[in-house]
Amino acid sequence: MSIVRHESGPILSLAVENGNTIYLAGIVPKNLKNDIKGQTQEVLAEIDRLLAKCGSSKSKLLQATIWVTDIRNRAPMNEVWTVWTDPKNLPVRACIEAKLADPACLVEIMVVAAKG
Amino acid sequence: MSIVRHESGPILSLAVENGNTIYLAGIVPKNLKNDIKGQTQEVLAEIDRLLAKCGSSKSKLLQATIWVTDIRNRAPMNEVWTVWTDPKNLPVRACIEAKLADPACLVEIMVVAAKG
Amino acid sequence: MSIVRHESGPILSLAVENGNTIYLAGIVPKNLKNDIKGQTQEVLAEIDRLLAKCGSSKSKLLQATIWVTDIRNRAPMNEVWTVWTDPKNLPVRACIEAKLADPACLVEIMVVAAKG
Repeated sequence: MSIVRHESGPILSLAVENGNTIYLAGIVPKNLKNDIKGQTQEVLAEIDRLLAKCGSSKSKLLQATIWVTDIRNRAPMNEVWTVWTDPKNLPVRACIEAKLADPACLVEIMVVAAKG
Repeated sequence: MSIVRHESGPILSLAVENGNTIYLAGIVPKNLKNDIKGQTQEVLAEIDRLLAKCGSSKSKLLQATIWVTDIRNRAPMNEVWTVWTDPKNLPVRACIEAKLADPACLVEIMVVAAKG
Repeated sequence: MSIVRHESGPILSLAVENGNTIYLAGIVPKNLKNDIKGQTQEVLAEIDRLLAKCGSSKSKLLQATIWVTDIRNRAPMNEVWTVWTDPKNLPVRACIEAKLADPACLVEIMVVAAKG
């Protein structure tokens, strides 16, 4: 089984395929002036882009770990999440509060998906 | 390889099978009046139930991530964990402190298991 | 597919192999008098040791989750990380702040790797 790595920078790859399983990095937004909804939309769009690059899509999501810097942002984050996800193909998920690298960043999402 | 999803609600599935690997959602207790031991017992019973539904069991656990809202609850949580786990088939594990969605919820556990 | 477990203690295994995938426990340093750089070096050396035991290496890393107790320690942790990692084979990664079991422990790292 071969490992395929995508968009590697100095400290991490943004996506790694191992056989049928795809691991994405914890994705954070770049546009940090947005509110939690805008930041979540940007993160999910980046996840779409990376999954497509790996020959997968949000319909093949297996697991999502979501960190929010303020757990009160879970509800508005969920509104964006619910619009974005494929309702017939929902991954397992955990959403917890944590301090992130950039204090202006409100959300980070790390997913595992199938290549399918 | 086909993906099998179990007990999907509006935002997540409680279990997702991908080939030989089973991902469970971060499980939280429903009975939030219980102390850390009671809450941990309820979470582990729910994990038993979901693993059985996927044709697996706690003896096939691979990885566990445990969030406690107060790291001082790690010791009593571990007491329940040690009684519950199969001592010959222990998963890898990380236990960290994090604020969870419901302030009355003291523990959340997310596991990965093999279908075996 | 068979599960192989390594170095199991009373609550967890330090490594679990399931087919081609290797899960390591959240590794913490033992020498807690070291600063963040020394603690990170010790954790990464232990990850090297465990991956070798599973017939793998840091060049086969797929995913890393890094918890630091003070997010300001992310930069010096990254300095050690960057020296250690194989620049052509970087895993995906998330680094978040969390309180850990021992208050003197500054960093915990949990990885998934391929057996390859």
